[in-house]
Amino acid sequence: MNNTLDTIMNHRSIRKFKDEKLTKEQIHTIVKAAQQASTSSYIMAYTIVGITDEDIKMKLSEVSGQPYVKDNGHLFVFCADLNRINQQATSELQEKMQASIESTEKFIVATVDTALAAQNAVIAAESMGLGVCYLGSLRNNISRVNDILELPEHVIPLFGLALGYPDEQPEKKPRLPLDVVYHENTYANDEQQRSKINDFDQQLKEYYKNRKTNTRIDTWSEQMIRKYSKTIRMDVTQFVKDKKLNKR
Amino acid sequence: MNNTLDTIMNHRSIRKFKDEKLTKEQIHTIVKAAQQASTSSYIMAYTIVGITDEDIKMKLSEVSGQPYVKDNGHLFVFCADLNRINQQATSELQEKMQASIESTEKFIVATVDTALAAQNAVIAAESMGLGVCYLGSLRNNISRVNDILELPEHVIPLFGLALGYPDEQPEKKPRLPLDVVYHENTYANDEQQRSKINDFDQQLKEYYKNRKTNTRIDTWSEQMIRKYSKTIRMDVTQFVKDKKLNKR
Repeated sequence: MNNTLDTIMNHRSIRKFKDEKLTKEQIHTIVKAAQQASTSSYIMAYTIVGITDEDIKMKLSEVSGQPYVKDNGHLFVFCADLNRINQQATSELQEKMQASIESTEKFIVATVDTALAAQNAVIAAESMGLGVCYLGSLRNNISRVNDILELPEHVIPLFGLALGYPDEQPEKKPRLPLDVVYHENTYANDEQQRSKINDFDQQLKEYYKNRKTNTRIDTWSEQMIRKYSKTIRMDVTQFVKDKKLNKR
Repeated sequence: MNNTLDTIMNHRSIRKFKDEKLTKEQIHTIVKAAQQASTSSYIMAYTIVGITDEDIKMKLSEVSGQPYVKDNGHLFVFCADLNRINQQATSELQEKMQASIESTEKFIVATVDTALAAQNAVIAAESMGLGVCYLGSLRNNISRVNDILELPEHVIPLFGLALGYPDEQPEKKPRLPLDVVYHENTYANDEQQRSKINDFDQQLKEYYKNRKTNTRIDTWSEQMIRKYSKTIRMDVTQFVKDKKLNKR
């Protein structure tokens, strides 16, 4: 086990940070690490907005409903960005690129590019002794985040990332058994899979019962079914289309 | 600079591998690393299919048109997966979950979850002395890949990942200037940005002219505009909808 594997295997999300800002040098190292991620056909289809303005942080924290969007060492918002290549083209060429930029294929490209960069940032930060928490909660009001950050056409905020020096030591959260997420050659969709997940549900029940804080009675399957029985953020669909992405 | 940052900063895609298979232990370490990535609301919305069957590798290589899809130490296909939670529910609850599972919001969740896991796998593999190459090329015929891997409803192949011991030492490819991808507080969409990209274009021209193999005259902007002026993989849109994802 090398240091990098140690860092990766010891990940836990941190939601309480010490009152210490990241230095400019730390931020730049993390962004440079993000930039080294693989990118589809070299497009680098993302923009990272770093939030230093306390007023903007407060507004974003209101969208998310989470105090650690405001109280942290630094805050990034990762945006999928197909505007950058568009603005390099003449209006004639822009017209030629429109169908491509608006396709679901390129929406996948931009979303994956952005996520790969973000995960590099996370591993870099954690290797530097920092903790992080992804913030899908910014999509609670994606249109408002878009306006706060003044994002142009073809750019959408995907998620935030709060970083800082950890001020808590949460337990490591169990993962599904390896052979539930890892299949060989073809997708295994059978009774055996379900029975492994049921075993995991029982294991998780023990975890929730015995952990130090926020104990409860719950399983993975029940939790997921509960969450996915509610529709949330259904406005994201139209918002993305209005930004001229994922619309054809 | 710690070891992990070294690994991240030294990334280059590897497209030529030695004729040596990864061990089961190596594969499991990499998959476990992937699983430790953050996941939206704990859903772990991905399945990784590892390809050991040479016939399946050959078929996937034909889809991609790339020999290294076949000739490598191991091959993963990363799939966005909202089937797993669905199959844990009764048919009554499945009906309640349908709108959520089919939404663009949850398509983003599954795509991001999958990409975060994949990038963890990449960093883990590289820290172990292996090289990797992402394979968006599997989407050249996404429906065929889907059939080869026998993916059920609510599961789509997003990209492949070829891994192995490097048998080439490609140069590190330049990245856009930091302040082009990193903005503070709001999106910078101005003449200064364009001028920085134009500078990068000139820098890249030199890189393409002077590198050891595959020299050419090209800039980033020209390359991107050329690529995005062609529509490719427009069938992905309907394919994803037919799999009951991203359709409402």
